[in-house]
Formats: sequence, structure tokens, C-alpha cells
Amino acid sequence: FQRCVGMDALNSLHSTTFEIDEKHGTDYHKRFLEFVKMVQKENLVIGGAMTDPKGDRSKGPADQDDPDLFTRIVDKDEKGIYVSGAKAHQTGCINSHWIILMPTVRLTENDKDWAIVGAIPADAKGVTYIYGRQSCDTRSMEEGDIDDGNAKYGGQEALIILDRVFIPWDKVFMNGEYEFASMLIERFTCYHRRSYVCKTGLGDVLIGAAATIADYNGVPKVSHIKDKIIEMTHLNEAIFAAGIASSHQGQKMKSGVYLNDDMLAQVCKHNVTRFPYEISRLAQDIAGGLVVTLPS
Amino acid sequence: FQRCVGMDALNSLHSTTFEIDEKHGTDYHKRFLEFVKMVQKENLVIGGAMTDPKGDRSKGPADQDDPDLFTRIVDKDEKGIYVSGAKAHQTGCINSHWIILMPTVRLTENDKDWAIVGAIPADAKGVTYIYGRQSCDTRSMEEGDIDDGNAKYGGQEALIILDRVFIPWDKVFMNGEYEFASMLIERFTCYHRRSYVCKTGLGDVLIGAAATIADYNGVPKVSHIKDKIIEMTHLNEAIFAAGIASSHQGQKMKSGVYLNDDMLAQVCKHNVTRFPYEISRLAQDIAGGLVVTLPS
Amino acid sequence: FQRCVGMDALNSLHSTTFEIDEKHGTDYHKRFLEFVKMVQKENLVIGGAMTDPKGDRSKGPADQDDPDLFTRIVDKDEKGIYVSGAKAHQTGCINSHWIILMPTVRLTENDKDWAIVGAIPADAKGVTYIYGRQSCDTRSMEEGDIDDGNAKYGGQEALIILDRVFIPWDKVFMNGEYEFASMLIERFTCYHRRSYVCKTGLGDVLIGAAATIADYNGVPKVSHIKDKIIEMTHLNEAIFAAGIASSHQGQKMKSGVYLNDDMLAQVCKHNVTRFPYEISRLAQDIAGGLVVTLPS
Amino acid sequence: FQRCVGMDALNSLHSTTFEIDEKHGTDYHKRFLEFVKMVQKENLVIGGAMTDPKGDRSKGPADQDDPDLFTRIVDKDEKGIYVSGAKAHQTGCINSHWIILMPTVRLTENDKDWAIVGAIPADAKGVTYIYGRQSCDTRSMEEGDIDDGNAKYGGQEALIILDRVFIPWDKVFMNGEYEFASMLIERFTCYHRRSYVCKTGLGDVLIGAAATIADYNGVPKVSHIKDKIIEMTHLNEAIFAAGIASSHQGQKMKSGVYLNDDMLAQVCKHNVTRFPYEISRLAQDIAGGLVVTLPS
Ligand SMILES: Cc1cc2nc3c(=O)[nH]c(=O)nc-3n(C[C@H](O)[C@H](O)[C@H](O)COP(=O)(O)OP(=O)(O)OC[C@H]3O[C@@H](n4cnc5c(N)ncnc54)[C@H](O)[C@@H]3O)c2cc1C
Ligand SMILES: Cc1cc2nc3c(=O)[nH]c(=O)nc-3n(C[C@H](O)[C@H](O)[C@H](O)COP(=O)(O)OP(=O)(O)OC[C@H]3O[C@@H](n4cnc5c(N)ncnc54)[C@H](O)[C@@H]3O)c2cc1C
Ligand SMILES: Cc1cc2nc3c(=O)[nH]c(=O)nc-3n(C[C@H](O)[C@H](O)[C@H](O)COP(=O)(O)OP(=O)(O)OC[C@H]3O[C@@H](n4cnc5c(N)ncnc54)[C@H](O)[C@@H]3O)c2cc1C
Ligand SMILES: Cc1cc2nc3c(=O)[nH]c(=O)nc-3n(C[C@H](O)[C@H](O)[C@H](O)COP(=O)(O)OP(=O)(O)OC[C@H]3O[C@@H](n4cnc5c(N)ncnc54)[C@H](O)[C@@H]3O)c2cc1C
Repeated sequence: FQRCVGMDALNSLHSTTFEIDEKHGTDYHKRFLEFVKMVQKENLVIGGAMTDPKGDRSKGPADQDDPDLFTRIVDKDEKGIYVSGAKAHQTGCINSHWIILMPTVRLTENDKDWAIVGAIPADAKGVTYIYGRQSCDTRSMEEGDIDDGNAKYGGQEALIILDRVFIPWDKVFMNGEYEFASMLIERFTCYHRRSYVCKTGLGDVLIGAAATIADYNGVPKVSHIKDKIIEMTHLNEAIFAAGIASSHQGQKMKSGVYLNDDMLAQVCKHNVTRFPYEISRLAQDIAGGLVVTLPS
Repeated sequence: FQRCVGMDALNSLHSTTFEIDEKHGTDYHKRFLEFVKMVQKENLVIGGAMTDPKGDRSKGPADQDDPDLFTRIVDKDEKGIYVSGAKAHQTGCINSHWIILMPTVRLTENDKDWAIVGAIPADAKGVTYIYGRQSCDTRSMEEGDIDDGNAKYGGQEALIILDRVFIPWDKVFMNGEYEFASMLIERFTCYHRRSYVCKTGLGDVLIGAAATIADYNGVPKVSHIKDKIIEMTHLNEAIFAAGIASSHQGQKMKSGVYLNDDMLAQVCKHNVTRFPYEISRLAQDIAGGLVVTLPS
Repeated sequence: FQRCVGMDALNSLHSTTFEIDEKHGTDYHKRFLEFVKMVQKENLVIGGAMTDPKGDRSKGPADQDDPDLFTRIVDKDEKGIYVSGAKAHQTGCINSHWIILMPTVRLTENDKDWAIVGAIPADAKGVTYIYGRQSCDTRSMEEGDIDDGNAKYGGQEALIILDRVFIPWDKVFMNGEYEFASMLIERFTCYHRRSYVCKTGLGDVLIGAAATIADYNGVPKVSHIKDKIIEMTHLNEAIFAAGIASSHQGQKMKSGVYLNDDMLAQVCKHNVTRFPYEISRLAQDIAGGLVVTLPS
Repeated sequence: FQRCVGMDALNSLHSTTFEIDEKHGTDYHKRFLEFVKMVQKENLVIGGAMTDPKGDRSKGPADQDDPDLFTRIVDKDEKGIYVSGAKAHQTGCINSHWIILMPTVRLTENDKDWAIVGAIPADAKGVTYIYGRQSCDTRSMEEGDIDDGNAKYGGQEALIILDRVFIPWDKVFMNGEYEFASMLIERFTCYHRRSYVCKTGLGDVLIGAAATIADYNGVPKVSHIKDKIIEMTHLNEAIFAAGIASSHQGQKMKSGVYLNDDMLAQVCKHNVTRFPYEISRLAQDIAGGLVVTLPS
């Protein structure tokens, strides 16, 4: 479950480590390439852990009352570094093999200790997971065979607590170069916002389901039903279009990887934050009351 | 739980029984007034049961393969009538004392047997309830005290199966006057669509919750947050406005009850089928990821 | 042409002058009532002149480079006061008999000289009008009889330049009580935003025109055409509903006039800034290309 | 002015003539290639004339009261054919060198006479132009230098009346193959709807203008202004994205030309029929009243 966030982390680190090295003479890019080789060879699932709890959003990491509201370096020795803090909303972290920790906001010189990127095994010492709830999540544990498809399993997000988690030097890909935090975040989100195009798959299922219910109801040819299915399709394909266009306008970075177009990735993301609500609304309109009241 | 649908049924029957009597010389209105007296005296909760399962929506009641897809008279004797069929999506029926059965679509002469209105006790012989599921409905049965307000109880909709349910003559308020079905439905929905104004109460709670989270996050003064809360309020008050305006433009019916304005009641309903999606979207935007991933 | 802005000015001054007098012991309310008597007796059209050019919107009146960007007192004597400045976007001012000058932004103590309300005859000495253009405004001067209704006349907005315009004391209704500027503006806009309900009249004409073109095209019964006309009607009536509801929830002020509900007046205004665009879009969709390309 | 419609006509005829020939053994494709050679050699502007007046939209060409409501063949001889009828809303036809006539609706066997494609010089015998009006079209003839850019010229649409216009055989590209009308129309509109991406150029100008006015007003950094400019940009780029994506997903036709993706071209078109209204609304919000009332 969920390889996309990790892939976005790998892609954005490819170019960012290259550009940090270029400026600072570090060797993050080489370390990073070694890490990628391992990932590919062992076919590992990577969790991309960017989002910190963030506390008071009007303040940066160094100004919070509690320094652990953003993940940071707390110690280092010749073998590596030790990090504490937390990562929130981590999709699929529990079924990942490795997790890449990255900063989540633009950092200033004061925030140097928070300018940390590194990879840890998901079961590293000092890592605690607090499992998040999802809507109707107990349903897959109920009896009955009315649910179809992936009826027995679900995704998951968790809150990760990090308590002096060790990262050896060869798995550290940023350490104090605070001015590169925003570059990493912007490239990560650029990839990630374009990847929301996956939500059109859910849209397709919903469109198909709505059309099937209209068939059952004897109204598939009714004009307003067709109009609504066309509108659902329009909205869904508009999301798709923005994703495809963003990729098509991609640019080669200095390190050799491609980065998709930023503005169009934002368009994709904005569409995804809007259209699924309208697609659902139309699906519910077509389906009638039973979506809400169906016995199981 | 839920007195509004029953009230809409009582209001619309007040004027419709009066106008049936006027044309057909029947005495439904008198019977109906007696029923209302009992309801008021005993403070009864009334379920308004209009919606039939309807089967193939391209056909009327008489043309369905299965005649029980719409509720109809199946027998009568000197004491009263016997009805069979079903009513779907019945809010609060299980906690109601009495249920009023009403037709759900415009009827033609062929559909005479389906032109039935009558009141039955909720536990009448021949009535079976199939309880409907609701999103996260098992949650109120879980342990923990994170939920607030009405944490232990929930609403309910059920499918009601009617198998030769007896209705004595004094509880029959329409019997065969098919041409009055649409009048009853239009008046019922006119009241009911205006009553959706209640959804603005949920909206108010959501607006308050969103504002509270923004406080917690340290961003209550941030301009885009304020704009979003204003927009949520605008949409919520737009629903409210349509309801109030519909009542204000109400007209007195022949029987003496008032009927709110039909066009503005539709405006209210249309707003309710649209704005809550956008209000929720904005609430989620303000709240951030935790709405989806919060542990419990 | 256009009595509404003047009426809003009169209504909001009724309660505001009363409340200024209450605090400051002035006699503005009495002067104002005398003025209203004259207006009513002579059936005068009043222009409500609130909007100043405002210059740099990040600064208040006293901080502008040019003090005349907001209208202000420049001199006074025993007979009255002298004002200079300008009023922009003044609807119908050229066909008004009298014009009421009012401040346009919340004022601070520094802005005392700008806290002026007074009435002047439209042709007072020192007043210059710069006539504004409107879309297709020369069309009413062209030959041909293809246009219908009010084909030969149009509305107008003008920029009014005020150069030491004299206002006698009995026509001065605020002079330096800067803390009442925001009360006056808020009440004025409260009336005025509710009055935008008039735009639904234009909407009705557009809905009728669209329906007529669909008749000409032979497609009045086509489902998507009907849906679009219903949607146009829904939007138009939603504007109407907010206006009516705002009036219905009106409150009596200390001076005895009623003020409609502020929040719902804002809802009305917001609807008016949005829905007419969608109503026009649908009208153009129904009408086809000829709206844009029709020869005349 | 306006080469795009002609280009869409050429592209769609390339593949359609090829496929007609394939089925019917005709030589339209060869004739067409000769025509294209001339166009390219002489750098001709081509008008693409598809839209007929269409009369009663509930009926096809053969069922209209007036057969000239759709363009059709009225005579033929050994040199060529003669066509009568009309073409409405023809952009740039008056400044074109040649005009390509094409059918505008799906045709049945009865409509054979209307299944005509052919190229005529813009000044061919029997052609009359009725010039269409545009909003504020007389403005470019007024004095003053307040307008900028292309201030002295404008586009134009005209109604073309065709009265026995002769087309020699080598300029006839369809003659009676009615079942290919819908293929031609669908391909033409597929190209054309994608080409609406050009409207984003206008959007860019409007975004820039709105941002400039905000600068003049001293409010460029104000949060709601920035949000509105971002939203304008989002909508404009969403149109762009759909166009680019449609091209990216293009497919090679049998004749060798590429056809962009149909579904995404519709998405582009739908966006264009919606977003510019919202972009304009935001521009007007940012600009304030002066857009409407500015003197000139
Ligand atoms: C289903 C799901 C899966 C996810 N998976 C992952 C994952 O795998 N890995 C990962 O790293 N993250 C993941 N995330 C986290 C996601 O990236 C964040 O939710 C997102 O970045 C928003 O952060 P937040 O939830 O802290 O919201 P906040 O940042 O708190 O935002 C709440 C609101 O406050 C506003 N706001 C916040 N700060 C400011 C400010 N300073 N100024 C003005 N406005 C402000 C925001 O605009 C927003 O409207 C996931 C989230 C979800 C919902
Ligand atoms: C939470 C909830 C509570 C409810 N409570 C009650 C209650 O207390 N009492 C009660 O009586 N009812 C109740 N209802 C039922 C409600 O009134 C119906 O859901 C509603 O009338 C729609 O009927 P339906 O669900 O059968 O949908 P359908 O009528 O099947 O509609 C599904 C879609 O098909 C379209 N459609 C259906 N027929 C046609 C046709 N002939 N031509 C063109 N299009 C068509 C509809 O427009 C819609 O888009 C409740 C519903 C819900 C969701
Ligand atoms: C600025 C501009 C430039 C143009 N330039 C060109 C050009 O260069 N070349 C060219 O060939 N054309 C051109 N057009 C024409 C354009 O392609 C047509 O306007 C468009 O195809 C719609 O046709 P119509 O105007 O006849 O509208 P109609 O087809 O009359 O549509 C009006 C409404 O009726 C509905 N309707 C019509 N018929 C039916 C039906 N049978 N069933 C259900 N609903 C129906 C439509 O959906 C629409 O809502 C231009 C148009 C414009 C506005
Ligand atoms: C057709 C028409 C008729 C009118 N008739 C009359 C009339 O009869 N009498 C009358 O008095 N007025 C009249 N007006 C004026 C109307 O009240 C003003 O247009 C309106 O108040 C907006 O003022 P403005 O045009 O100066 O825009 P601005 O105030 O300049 O606004 C432009 C944009 O900048 C933003 N903005 C401005 N200042 C700030 C700030 N400090 N902080 C953040 N954002 C800011 C606004 O929100 C807006 O988005 C009329 C206007 C029109 C269009």
C-alpha cells in the first residue's frame, strides 16, 4: 500500500542533494544514490515523512514552546545523528520498510537543528506509532459479504513519535543546510500534487457506480442523469488533464531527473481539493436516498 | 427524534383533505382533525411515510412488475382497509408512535389502488422494520470519551415492509382520489423543503468547530482563514435566508392553514443539496489533515 | 432614474443623526427631518454620494498625498461650511435635484475634517460633473428600431468634483463626529446591499428572453434547456430570498426607523456579485452564438 | 485575423477525405492535398464555415420549412456544383482569402443534398456578407488615445448568404457521403475545442491588468487580492492544462495527421465556457467600480 509518497521523496531528493553538494561540497548525493540502489534491489516500500505536528502555526520550529513539535537533531557522534520529534498523518508508514524524514516548512538560520533529512527503518529503535482512525474503519472487521473489492483491508495513517532515533551518516541526506529546506519541500510537493491525479481512479469507480444505479432505477437514458454523469466525467478528466499537462511540461534538473511543471501541479492539486466534493454530490443525486439509508 | 416530517404530513393533509372533501363530498377532513386532536393530546411523535421503493423509475405504480413496490390497498371490509407494500428511508420511524402512509408520485386513473393515505400505530400488525446503516454508526457503541454532545445515540432510517396492515376507516384520509396525490405531495414537499433550513444548525456547529481549530493552530487572524469562515457563514445564511423568505411569503389555504412559498422552498432545498458540500470542504481546509487522520 | 441610493442615505441618516445628537447634544436630527419634509413635499430625487476616489487604499484620508482624494471641510463661517474633494461612480447624480455627501470609510480622530455629511443642490456652485462611459452607450444614439423598451435613454454614473461648495448649517448633518462615520456607512450599506434585490428584475427579463429564444429555436421542451432555465430561476430567486429575509428580520432603531438584518443583507449582496455571471452564462448557452454575432 | 478555424478545417478534412476515399473509392484526398499546397504556397487565410442557421433545431436539414436554412447542393454540371444556403457567425470571413463550406450536423440518408464540402474564394459570385455587431464596436472609430494595443481594428463575425455559388470539382471534398458528416464535425470540433486554449492569452492580460490596478490602489500585498489573483491564475491555467493534455494524448489517424484527444478537448471547451466568467468577476472585484464608470 502506498508507494507514491516515498517515490516523491526519492525524486525530490535526487535533485536537491545534488544541488546541496554543488554549493556546500558535501556528498549527500552519493549517499542518496547508494540508498536508492538498496531500495531498488530489495524492492522496498518507502514512507515519505514530511509533515510535522507544527503546534502554533504562526511560529517557526525554533520559536515553538515545545521543540519537538518539529523533528530535529538532538545529538550526534561519529557514527551518525539522533533525532526526536514527530511526524503526523503518515500514510502507509506501518506497512513501509523504510521511512525518509524531511523538514516540512521553509527554515531560517535559527532553525538549523531542524534542517534534517535521513532514512530510518520503519522499526528503528525509538519509533512509536499511534494509529489513526478512518471513517467506517471498523466496517472491514464486520461480518457479511455485501462489500466487494478490497473489503478486508484498508489504508492507514499514523502519528509517528520519534525519541532519539539513530540515523547513521550514510543515511543522512541533509544536516543543517536550512536554506535548502524550501527547495526540497517545493520539489516534493510539486511531484506530490501532480500525483493526486490518482484520485481520478476513485472518480472513475464512482462514475461507474452512479451509472449502474441509474440502470437499476430504469433511468439511464433520462437527460438530467446523462448530464450529471457527463459533468462527473468532465470534472474527473479535468483533474487528469492537469496532471498529464504538468508532466508534459516537465523540465530536466541539474542532477538529471525531471521535475514536472509546478504551476500545473498546483492546478491539479486545487482541482483535487474541489471537484471530488462535486463528483460525490452528483453521485448521491443520481443514487437517491439509498446511499445514506441502505441496510447492510 | 425527528418530529418535522410528521408535522409536514399533518400540515399538508389539513388543506388536502379539505379540498378532497370539497370536490368529492367525503369527510376526510373531519377524521383528520380528530386524529390531530389525539396526536396533540397524547403528544405523539408521527412518522411521515411518503417514499416508496419505486422499482423501475420509468414506470408508474400500476406498471411495475411487482405491485408491492408502491404501497396500495389490497383489501377492504366494513371496518377499514388493508394495505401492503413498503416505505423506504423512513427517518425516526422506530421511535415514532404513529406513522402516516402517503403516496409518493403523481398518480393516474390506473393507479387508483395506490391512492391511499392512512395512519397506523408504529407497532401495527404486519409491519416489519429493516434497520438502515449510517456512516460510522458503530462508533457510538465504542468505548472512550472523545466524542461529545449526543455521543451515545444516533438517528435512524429504516425500510418498512407492510404486509396486509389494517387501517380503520376513521384513520383513512384518502382512498382512491388519485388526482389529489400530486397536490398532497407538492404541499408536503413544499413544507419539507423549507424545513431543511434546520441544516444551518449543523452548519453553525461546523463553522464554530473550524474557527476553534484555527485558534488552536495559532492562525485565527490569518486573512484566508477569515475569508473561509466568512464564506462558510455566507453559504449557511443563504440557506437560512431562503427558508425564512419562503415562510414570509406564505399563503393561507382554503382549510385555514398556511402554506409557505413553493418556489423559495425549492431554492432552500437546492441550496441544501449544494452548500453543505462546500461548507465541509472549507471546514476541512481550515482544519488540515487531522480531520481525516486523528487517532481516537 | 435611481431613487434608491438617496433613500438609503435618508434611512441611515435618520437613525445616525438621532444617535449623534444623543451623544453630542447636537440638533442634526431636527435639521434632517426638515430636509426630509422638503424632499417629500417637492418630490425631489436625491443622489447618495458616499464613494470618494480614495487614492492609496492602504492609507486613510488624512494620510493621502492629496487631501482632496476624500471630501472634506475646507472652511466655515457663520452661514455654513465649504467642502472640497470628489465623489466617484455617482449613479444618477446628473438627474438628481439634491445630493447628500457622506464619508466613505471608517474615520479616526486625525480624519475629523473628513467627517462631513451635508446636502447640496445638484447644481450648486463649485460642482463639476465628469460623465462616465458605459458599455455600448453610444448605441442609443444610433439609428434603427431593433432595440426595444427604454431604447433611447440610459443610466449614467459621473465623477463629481467639489471645489469649495457651500453648505448652509441647516443642511449639515455631521461635522467632525468622526466616530459616527462607520455607523453611518454600515447602516447605509446595510440598506443598500439589501436593495440589490432589484437586480432580480433584470434576471427575470433575461430568463424570459432565454426561454423565448429556445421557443424560436424549436427546443423549449428539451431537458437541458429546461434545466438551465430552472437553474437561472433558482439563482435569481436565491438573490430575492436573501433580500426578503433581510427585511423580514429587520429591527427598530432608537430613532424609530427600521433597519433590515445586516448579515442577510450581506448574503444578498454576495449573491448579487456572483449569480448574475452564472445567469448570463446560462442565457448565452441557451441563446447560442447569435447574442455575440447578431447584425443590427 | 483568425487562422485557427481554417486550420481546424484543413486538419479534419485531411483524415476524413482519406477515409471517405477508402470506403467510396473517390479521390477527395488527392484534390484536398492539391488545395493545401496552394494554400501553403500562397500563404492564404482560410475561413472554416461550418455553422448553418439551422432554423427549427428539433428538425434536420431535409425537414425544415425552408431548405436554405442548411447549405446544400442545388445544381451540378460537368464543371462542378452549385450551392445555396447560409453560414452564420463566420469569424474573420471578410478578411479570408478562401472559405471552406462544411456540414454542421449529423446527416441521414434524406439529407444527402446537404452532405457537401467545398472551398470557395471569399469573393466568389453569389456570396453576400451581412456584417455582425460586436459589443462596443463603434468605439474603435471614436477619437481619443485612451485605448491601447490594437485600438483601431477589431475582429468580425458575419452571416454569409450563398446564392448558387459555383464550386469546381477539384475544390469539392465531399458530395453526398452523408454518413461521413458526423466524422468530419467531430474531428473538426475536437481540434477546435482544444484550440480554445487561446483564450488563456486574454486571461493573462486580464490577470496582469487586475494586478496593475491593485498596485495603483496601494493594495498589491493585501491577502484577499493575492488570493483572487491566484484563483484567476488557477482557472486560466486549468484551461491551458486541458488543451496541452489533449494534444499530448493525440493519436495518429489513418491519413497520417494527428488528432488530439477528444474527451480532453471537451474538458478544455467546457472550462472555456465557464472559467472566463469567474475570471472576469474576480477582475472586476479587484478593480472596483471604475471598470464600469470610468470616463474616457
Ligand atoms: C489522508 C492524508 C494522508 C497524508 N499522508 C501524508 C504522508 O504520507 N506523509 C506526510 O508527510 N504527510 C502526509 N499528510 C499530511 C499533509 O501533507 C498535511 O495534512 C498538509 O500538509 C496540511 O498540514 P496540516 O494537516 O498540518 O494542516 P495545517 O498546516 O495546520 O493547515 C490547517 C489550515 O491552516 C492554514 N495555515 C496553517 N499554517 C498557516 C500559516 N502559517 N499561515 C496561514 N495559514 C496557515 C492552512 O492553510 C489550512 O487552511 C497526509 C494528510 C492526509 C489528510
Ligand atoms: C436521510 C434521509 C432521510 C429520509 N427520510 C424520509 C422520511 O422520513 N420519510 C420519507 O417518506 N422519505 C424519507 N426520505 C426519502 C427521500 O424523500 C427520498 O430519498 C427522495 O424523495 C428521493 O427518492 P429516492 O431515494 O427513491 O431516489 P430516486 O427517486 O430513485 O432518485 C434517484 C435519481 O434518479 C432520478 N430519477 C428518479 N426517477 C426519475 C424519473 N422518473 N425521471 C427522471 N429522473 C428520475 C432522480 O432525479 C435522482 O437523480 C429520506 C431520505 C434520506 C436520504
Ligand atoms: C464568436 C463566435 C465565433 C464563431 N466563429 C465561427 C466560425 O468561424 N465558423 C463557424 O462555422 N462557426 C462559428 N461560430 C458558430 C458556433 O460554432 C456556433 O455558435 C455553435 O456551434 C452553436 O450554434 P448556434 O449558435 O446555432 O446555437 P444553437 O445550436 O442554436 O444552440 C442554442 C442552444 O440550443 C441548444 N440546442 C440546439 N439544438 C438542439 C437540439 N437539437 N437538442 C437539444 N438542444 C439543442 C444548444 O445546446 C444551445 O444550448 C462562432 C460562434 C461565435 C459565438
Ligand atoms: C455601477 C455603479 C454605481 C455606483 N453608484 C454609486 C452611487 O450612486 N453612490 C456612491 O456613493 N457610490 C456608488 N458606487 C460606488 C461603489 O459604492 C464603489 O464602487 C464600491 O464601494 C467600491 O469602491 P471602489 O470602486 O473605490 O473600489 P476599491 O475600494 O478601490 O476596491 C477595489 C478592490 O480593492 C480592495 N481594497 C480596497 N481597499 C482595500 C483595503 N484597504 N484593504 C484591502 N482591500 C482593499 C477591494 O476589496 C476591491 O477588491 C457605484 C459603483 C458602481 C460600479
